[in-house]
Amino acid sequence: MDNFTYRNPTKLIFGKGRIAELSQEIAPGSKVLVAYGGGSIRQNGVYDQVLSALQGVELFEFGGIEANPDFDTLMKAVEIVRQQGVQFILSVGGGSVLDGVKFIAAAAHLEGDPWTILTGKAEIKSAIPIGSVLTLPGTGSEMNCFSVISRRSTNEKLAFGNPLVYPVFSILDPETTYSLPKRQIGNGVADAFVHVIEQYLTYPSDAPLQDRMAESVLLTLIEEGPKTLANPDDYTSRANIMWAATMALNGIISVGVPQDWATHGIGHELTALYGLDHARTLAVVLPSLLRQRKDVKQAKLVQFAERVWDFKTGSADEKIEAAIQKTEGFFLSLGIPVKLSAHQIGEEAAKRVVQNLSRRGEIALGEDGKITGPVVEKILIEAV
Amino acid sequence: MDNFTYRNPTKLIFGKGRIAELSQEIAPGSKVLVAYGGGSIRQNGVYDQVLSALQGVELFEFGGIEANPDFDTLMKAVEIVRQQGVQFILSVGGGSVLDGVKFIAAAAHLEGDPWTILTGKAEIKSAIPIGSVLTLPGTGSEMNCFSVISRRSTNEKLAFGNPLVYPVFSILDPETTYSLPKRQIGNGVADAFVHVIEQYLTYPSDAPLQDRMAESVLLTLIEEGPKTLANPDDYTSRANIMWAATMALNGIISVGVPQDWATHGIGHELTALYGLDHARTLAVVLPSLLRQRKDVKQAKLVQFAERVWDFKTGSADEKIEAAIQKTEGFFLSLGIPVKLSAHQIGEEAAKRVVQNLSRRGEIALGEDGKITGPVVEKILIEAV
Repeated sequence: MDNFTYRNPTKLIFGKGRIAELSQEIAPGSKVLVAYGGGSIRQNGVYDQVLSALQGVELFEFGGIEANPDFDTLMKAVEIVRQQGVQFILSVGGGSVLDGVKFIAAAAHLEGDPWTILTGKAEIKSAIPIGSVLTLPGTGSEMNCFSVISRRSTNEKLAFGNPLVYPVFSILDPETTYSLPKRQIGNGVADAFVHVIEQYLTYPSDAPLQDRMAESVLLTLIEEGPKTLANPDDYTSRANIMWAATMALNGIISVGVPQDWATHGIGHELTALYGLDHARTLAVVLPSLLRQRKDVKQAKLVQFAERVWDFKTGSADEKIEAAIQKTEGFFLSLGIPVKLSAHQIGEEAAKRVVQNLSRRGEIALGEDGKITGPVVEKILIEAV
Repeated sequence: MDNFTYRNPTKLIFGKGRIAELSQEIAPGSKVLVAYGGGSIRQNGVYDQVLSALQGVELFEFGGIEANPDFDTLMKAVEIVRQQGVQFILSVGGGSVLDGVKFIAAAAHLEGDPWTILTGKAEIKSAIPIGSVLTLPGTGSEMNCFSVISRRSTNEKLAFGNPLVYPVFSILDPETTYSLPKRQIGNGVADAFVHVIEQYLTYPSDAPLQDRMAESVLLTLIEEGPKTLANPDDYTSRANIMWAATMALNGIISVGVPQDWATHGIGHELTALYGLDHARTLAVVLPSLLRQRKDVKQAKLVQFAERVWDFKTGSADEKIEAAIQKTEGFFLSLGIPVKLSAHQIGEEAAKRVVQNLSRRGEIALGEDGKITGPVVEKILIEAV
């Protein structure tokens, strides 16, 4: 096990009817910006619940934060925050809104070009405190300090992380997710699944508890995912998916172990170039990446096959291929294709992705930094 | 899954050589009380590491905090803290020292009788910030807000919990535990094991992730416990035990699920009356309690037998008895007896424990409040 430091200050407020507690979490009299997405929260009653809970504060609103939140959109909110002297930002929506809010919170206090927050060149010294009412499980943004922002004008999609943007609190009421389209729930389950894989499927590092906890999240997603798709208003499976997605990326399962994140790195470029849903890029990249890297990942792939998919006989290669096929089957069962061609994307994507990645310097992805340009190309060509 | 709120602000600083980072965690110029136990930290080099890291603060010392920290001992430290205006308390030692420090931190700011902190009658409005350098894995105190305090003058042992006494940070360097006596390591592993059982072995509550995470900790303790006893200076198994013990009681595995804690409730009385090591009381009480309660706990006991001890055939009763015997075997393998008679304690203990418990009101322990006086008596008589 490697040395690690873990601190996660977010207060998680989980369960039915908890939005009513909002007023206890934000200082009375504060100037609060409520940020949201396309307006579905106005139809499903969440917006009304939030407003009726938020008595006694001075409210501002910012709607229209899109999936894969856009830098140019968010900069409009930064303007409002600065002009109005907003003291707290409340994200109401899924991970995209919350990622956007994290960026707004950091950018509002930054001197200089806010894009440098994404390129890693900014020194973030403070941020406006934020909270969230989560209405879509998947990204894990509700209990971590990470954010992914897109810039459509330049076909870029980049991530940042900073302890100053941990949500002060996140309210997770599984009932708010009943009205979500199946596509969004399927995407959320797949996203959480791949988050775990990125932190688990590398090489053995003498960390049996981290391994088992990662496997626990995977097994829960595999069992509960299909149930929650079939019965959207079954509280139990919705609650289990929501908690599993949070645990998938709140840092607990990855303390002291190597991490990969190449599937996300490549997937972000596919979203930036082709506008694919985030989870749909992951479902295309992951199986191909695992096949390309089955030698370096062999020990953990066999463990994954045995413990998660229950393949206990056969050669290592047979177990590995069976586990990858099961993973593909799982994505398909969520309604998510596992090939680029299903999205009308062909081999030309390989060169474009590598070009985009190269723009920011040498490509060296994966737990060992050995996923270089040619490897990315192979992964994508095999994924067509 | 039940509604829950989870917030754990402790910063965990885990790994080799991390004590040197102490100075970054405490404000320079602070008045710091270093609290410790019997002085073993002076022999194993930890004391020197702490002092050399703690440059630039005004140091006070308080040694002699015993296992099962005593109210009267701790009140002497409260005096020092008040007189000197101590601003930060650093616990250097195991869970007993840290539990004691939590009490000192709360008591120093309390008006009125500090014993009311333990009886639940005090309103704790503030506490002195605390940190810890942990030298013994087991209690989980390093990442929670709970504390158990004894009062030998009245044969009492009571617990309290308050968010104000979360350690600001805890430094866990597995190397500091190499020199521990086997008895203390065995106790720590058993203590952590029973912590998990108290949060897991109740009744099904539609929380598959919490179940699997609890099982993950149990399996890790079962695998790594014997290894770390056999090879005290094997870093890997010591690190795994240390992390497992923290995860066993930092609240993550018990969100939204019922909890038992009757084994601890009964065990505390055995320590208060007979001075038994805490873990040794648990190893005696737990198997007998599980047998007495095998009907109400049937579903989870079968799951425990199947998933933790790999008993997949036979009747429910056979699986359950096999799992309880395996649990006894595990305690014995740690050098811990599972019968009261091994401690020269007979049936008379049953009435004395019930008397002690009754003093504070009606006895209603367990996840369903149905472990009454007569049930406690039976559990203890069968444990002789």
